[in-house]
Amino acid sequence: MKDTTEIKAALRAQHIETPSWAYGNSGTRFKVFAQRGVPRDPYEKLADAAQVHKYTGVAPTVALHIPWDKVDDYADLARHARELGVGIGAINSNVFQDDDYMLGSVTNPDPAVRRKATDHLLECVDIMDQTGSDTLKLWFSDGTNYPGQDDIRARQDRLAEALATVYERLGENQRFLLEYKLFEPAFYTTDVPDWGTAYAHCVKLGPKAQVVVDTGHHAPGTNIEFIVAFLLREGKLGGFDFNSRFYADDDLMVGAADPFQLFRIMFEVVRGGGLGPHVAFMLDQCHNIEPKIPGQIRSVMNVQEATAKALLVDQEALSAAQQAGDVLGANAVFMDAYNTDVRPLLAELRTEMGLAADPMAAYRDSGYHEKIAAERVGGTQAGWGA
Amino acid sequence: MKDTTEIKAALRAQHIETPSWAYGNSGTRFKVFAQRGVPRDPYEKLADAAQVHKYTGVAPTVALHIPWDKVDDYADLARHARELGVGIGAINSNVFQDDDYMLGSVTNPDPAVRRKATDHLLECVDIMDQTGSDTLKLWFSDGTNYPGQDDIRARQDRLAEALATVYERLGENQRFLLEYKLFEPAFYTTDVPDWGTAYAHCVKLGPKAQVVVDTGHHAPGTNIEFIVAFLLREGKLGGFDFNSRFYADDDLMVGAADPFQLFRIMFEVVRGGGLGPHVAFMLDQCHNIEPKIPGQIRSVMNVQEATAKALLVDQEALSAAQQAGDVLGANAVFMDAYNTDVRPLLAELRTEMGLAADPMAAYRDSGYHEKIAAERVGGTQAGWGA
Amino acid sequence: MKDTTEIKAALRAQHIETPSWAYGNSGTRFKVFAQRGVPRDPYEKLADAAQVHKYTGVAPTVALHIPWDKVDDYADLARHARELGVGIGAINSNVFQDDDYMLGSVTNPDPAVRRKATDHLLECVDIMDQTGSDTLKLWFSDGTNYPGQDDIRARQDRLAEALATVYERLGENQRFLLEYKLFEPAFYTTDVPDWGTAYAHCVKLGPKAQVVVDTGHHAPGTNIEFIVAFLLREGKLGGFDFNSRFYADDDLMVGAADPFQLFRIMFEVVRGGGLGPHVAFMLDQCHNIEPKIPGQIRSVMNVQEATAKALLVDQEALSAAQQAGDVLGANAVFMDAYNTDVRPLLAELRTEMGLAADPMAAYRDSGYHEKIAAERVGGTQAGWGA
Amino acid sequence: MKDTTEIKAALRAQHIETPSWAYGNSGTRFKVFAQRGVPRDPYEKLADAAQVHKYTGVAPTVALHIPWDKVDDYADLARHARELGVGIGAINSNVFQDDDYMLGSVTNPDPAVRRKATDHLLECVDIMDQTGSDTLKLWFSDGTNYPGQDDIRARQDRLAEALATVYERLGENQRFLLEYKLFEPAFYTTDVPDWGTAYAHCVKLGPKAQVVVDTGHHAPGTNIEFIVAFLLREGKLGGFDFNSRFYADDDLMVGAADPFQLFRIMFEVVRGGGLGPHVAFMLDQCHNIEPKIPGQIRSVMNVQEATAKALLVDQEALSAAQQAGDVLGANAVFMDAYNTDVRPLLAELRTEMGLAADPMAAYRDSGYHEKIAAERVGGTQAGWGA
Repeated sequence: MKDTTEIKAALRAQHIETPSWAYGNSGTRFKVFAQRGVPRDPYEKLADAAQVHKYTGVAPTVALHIPWDKVDDYADLARHARELGVGIGAINSNVFQDDDYMLGSVTNPDPAVRRKATDHLLECVDIMDQTGSDTLKLWFSDGTNYPGQDDIRARQDRLAEALATVYERLGENQRFLLEYKLFEPAFYTTDVPDWGTAYAHCVKLGPKAQVVVDTGHHAPGTNIEFIVAFLLREGKLGGFDFNSRFYADDDLMVGAADPFQLFRIMFEVVRGGGLGPHVAFMLDQCHNIEPKIPGQIRSVMNVQEATAKALLVDQEALSAAQQAGDVLGANAVFMDAYNTDVRPLLAELRTEMGLAADPMAAYRDSGYHEKIAAERVGGTQAGWGA
Repeated sequence: MKDTTEIKAALRAQHIETPSWAYGNSGTRFKVFAQRGVPRDPYEKLADAAQVHKYTGVAPTVALHIPWDKVDDYADLARHARELGVGIGAINSNVFQDDDYMLGSVTNPDPAVRRKATDHLLECVDIMDQTGSDTLKLWFSDGTNYPGQDDIRARQDRLAEALATVYERLGENQRFLLEYKLFEPAFYTTDVPDWGTAYAHCVKLGPKAQVVVDTGHHAPGTNIEFIVAFLLREGKLGGFDFNSRFYADDDLMVGAADPFQLFRIMFEVVRGGGLGPHVAFMLDQCHNIEPKIPGQIRSVMNVQEATAKALLVDQEALSAAQQAGDVLGANAVFMDAYNTDVRPLLAELRTEMGLAADPMAAYRDSGYHEKIAAERVGGTQAGWGA
Repeated sequence: MKDTTEIKAALRAQHIETPSWAYGNSGTRFKVFAQRGVPRDPYEKLADAAQVHKYTGVAPTVALHIPWDKVDDYADLARHARELGVGIGAINSNVFQDDDYMLGSVTNPDPAVRRKATDHLLECVDIMDQTGSDTLKLWFSDGTNYPGQDDIRARQDRLAEALATVYERLGENQRFLLEYKLFEPAFYTTDVPDWGTAYAHCVKLGPKAQVVVDTGHHAPGTNIEFIVAFLLREGKLGGFDFNSRFYADDDLMVGAADPFQLFRIMFEVVRGGGLGPHVAFMLDQCHNIEPKIPGQIRSVMNVQEATAKALLVDQEALSAAQQAGDVLGANAVFMDAYNTDVRPLLAELRTEMGLAADPMAAYRDSGYHEKIAAERVGGTQAGWGA
Repeated sequence: MKDTTEIKAALRAQHIETPSWAYGNSGTRFKVFAQRGVPRDPYEKLADAAQVHKYTGVAPTVALHIPWDKVDDYADLARHARELGVGIGAINSNVFQDDDYMLGSVTNPDPAVRRKATDHLLECVDIMDQTGSDTLKLWFSDGTNYPGQDDIRARQDRLAEALATVYERLGENQRFLLEYKLFEPAFYTTDVPDWGTAYAHCVKLGPKAQVVVDTGHHAPGTNIEFIVAFLLREGKLGGFDFNSRFYADDDLMVGAADPFQLFRIMFEVVRGGGLGPHVAFMLDQCHNIEPKIPGQIRSVMNVQEATAKALLVDQEALSAAQQAGDVLGANAVFMDAYNTDVRPLLAELRTEMGLAADPMAAYRDSGYHEKIAAERVGGTQAGWGA
């Protein structure tokens, strides 16, 4: 088992990015329930994100979503973030909310729509230049609902063309992460449905194109940690969109549905040397019925707990048992780490970092929630549409 | 094989109900794409539904959704429907779109919310009285998102209480259909997640409570035709909410994703004596990217084609092969009906009914779509929220 | 949180039954890997099962499988078990391994095969009489592989008839547990595919018929703890066949694939008053690649750990948070118990029971494995076929 | 719509390979039901396979499975095949049925086992040389059952090494097809679980390494035709192992569970130019409860019917509707082909080929089944083990 000091150092170095849209309202197609105190603009979202960093100490960046976080002056927004103690993280493109995109964005049969979508992606790189962000996250809702609706292969050609255009535009220290998703909102084919598709496109493009694993975007039964291990071996794992699910893309708090799975994923990250700055640990969740800021704090803590357990695995003993073909022995080493209660260790770490041992309680006691609920009256609450 | 005359008579007698909400806009949590010509109120929805009946001849009733179809004078709405040549079908309750229902409606931990939800259900029975509808459809989005969030068992107690209250209120010729659904919008537990739960509640309540099978509401791999056969055997199949899906509750046009499954379902309906007025054949779909009225016409036709094939099965030969344990022989009899092209038969039937042989072409050529697109300008288009 | 003494008392009282077939060889359709020291007959199986009880102290009974455990003198077998410190548990019927059962057993289209199958079930009740077992476990592999192959509904009629015959034969203190399973070995329809089917049959039969939940027998995404809670509410949960799976009916060690799920299940058992003798906690697993006896010991420990965590839940605090609609608060109470490392508590309990604190180590150090590997040479190893 | 003559020419040119093991007994882990007349050796298997070709005219080759089809003199076996009017197709390696392979073959932690497994693969290439087969099919059952059991990444390294060794050994006109499978017999990780993994390895190896798609080897909800289209676009689709399933790897007759899916797959094959000799159309099924030879004949016919429908699609009209964004119009063109009854066309083709119009009836009337049932008495029937 590793030294506690080493484990703490690794946990201190691990940064978990929160998404600006997690602080706005979200919901299902049936209903978006409004919550009190929700931000009305990107500046307020950043203020809320800063709270998460304040109490956890490991969430120093915030992902933006364009156009939801469109502002006139991105340099000013970045300055605002810095003043709050946080920075701008990945820029997330959005080519799924304009009526033009009904039949697709970069894979649309209409070349004018494809051009519009590609232009948006290029605009996102402009915003990266202005905010200093080095990561562009590309998710395409593109696909079809009915057999025969469009040509599966032609859509791949169109996709490849758009990706190449964006790839060319990337600066020296910029990269993009290509996200895959089994289904939703497309219900028959999705143009990037699995890691294999994302990987194949990225390999052709080059080192600035990598795959991002959203933990809720797989078919039932998919072994996500296998994908993580495989992509790390290939040097193609760019990062995570963390969340959890029992069914489809439920976007629950990471670790809430299957904490053991999260541990197995983090174990492969550690095993594969992915616990460094080149792999982005990002949250991508919907707090539909729970309060947003505590939802993010809890999620950050869940990632930390899984990481701590992964770091606790006695790799030497594990390796010895594996080499010996000792199935139960190897599993026991693995489970021993998982079954350990790492909360005391994390409380200790937080104290050493000058933080409260219990971030949830500290936030609750801070009065911030009551303050924003009282102050943020009027205006339009932020949501997926704005 | 049955006589063609008999088959046609059965097809002529089969009524397929369309839902008022299929004519409004719908979408996913990501985006609702607006379409031209979409109705602004229940009166316009009924007008569109009347078009489906006009060209198919077998869609004489329209389901309402309360409060989406709330009007001051239901008698007037019913009169309007009659003038259009259609009638009011099932009344669908909605206890999922008020902020109060964030943690549930009839199963909410707060008794005041439960009372409000139950009152709405009783109001729906009032509307049944006013419209002459004999069927109340109950779907509860109730459930939880996180383990521990609420008490699974207590929620069943609350559900049972609400159902009993509504059951008591039903008139002599009224019934309710209880709908089940695996998940969405609840992502951990759903209070009526499967047919077993719906069935158990209905059995306790009595003959006026029956189960409705929404073909998109099952776990992957679930054999829906088995459920249909079982519920028919128990006298508890109240009807269908037809649609189709490749993944979750995709709400695509019925028969679009797996036409063979629809055939197998209709075969069990025929086999179990369910092709009568006591089983309601209702559509419940979302035409997110395709035009609404043709989407409904195509769906009605798909149900008809599956029914025609089911009626074509040579039951005598099938039974003989089954009794003999002739696996391939029995399957061949079954597949022979499925592989038959029944479109000529249905075209013939339509001609005999005084309809155009091709309802899709007839509607397209009617100019109705252009007319509503031109006339219905201004106002707020109907959607799931209104 | 409950008192530690109470928790320990509950854990001491919980009995976990191991299955005789877990000590024999098992595998997949691709290969059964033989292991050294595997029993050759029911007497040796009981000896191995006694080892599991010896080191865990909570596995005092062993389930038999007929005809795999067929002996001439069941009274003698029961005496042998008693001498080893264990008793005979549930009798498991087997109507799936005779060539006659290719198209089904009690639901076979051929009445002679049905009679033969029913006779076997009645013979199992005879064995219950002879061994003193009070529980008959009924699993039917019956179903079909191809659409049209047999009549779904007629098979239900045949099933109902067989169940009624067996029910009538049960003695005053005997019961049967009806098992359901989504699929395998039947690949199109299964005659008892889900809890709803098992429940409906059991309700009609009466109080001696109950449902048994095999944790590996559900469709992907099925919420098993919901089913447990529901059946307990109805008084129809007879017991568990514990195992775990990532995909289909993988039959891995319980708790190995999703320990959080096992905790949630045990929480509902505790919540619903199921932690008593009327709910049977049975293992049903395949140790295809790991040694059998340690595999059983680990599984018993996994059930204990999940139970201990379930008992640790602060029900009062949970209830308060649930009533207040505090989603994150209620979840936190729940997760606090899950995240607790209960291994020290269980080690303490074992010491108090006069057992070694670590059953796995104690067994390993006992030399039993080496002994049986050396002694059990020659003869035919027990497996699913014998 | 294409010219009927062209469609018939394409159907005449399509060859469907049957597997030697389909003529032997097969089953599930629960039971292998023996059937009368089943072959006892590879020579008899080839005789049965020749019957399938005799009545369908499009099944001229037979895949072998080593060691199930091990003979002393492969040249003699090939001669025997030629005399029967068929040829030897793909060679299927088997590294999953030796006790040494319990923890894996080419990915086993033990280098001695890895060497043994690789040697077997090389031996299969020797057999290719001797039989003139140009295709090696590689399926690895390798994987793990428990988290921590072995190192996911190290197993990829071992796999890559073995594949490279075999690749080097391939002759100029030889290739291998790498098969992927979600799970079974491994229940936690599988070393080649999805097309992405197979593809990534094949791309690195070169043009003689291609992916084979077994239609039953995917997670629920996976869009197989997308994978087919993608692999064809990349020039990496080597062939199919056809079968069908409702649940897991059920290995039912192709087209039996979802004929519409088979049509969609064949449409992508046609669309992507895959209807040539470079894509191998192979059956890989288990006739557990139906007679073997008719099961193969029916399966060949099912592939033909799906192909005929795919060829019937009016590609020009489809493309026009797709380009116009006409969702329902494009779907209608697609469905029009699917809904066509192509059996008359195929009967006509068979007559033109000098065959009976109905292969099932012709085989049944031939008396071959009665003949082998009478003659093949004694000896050991072939099965998965031999």
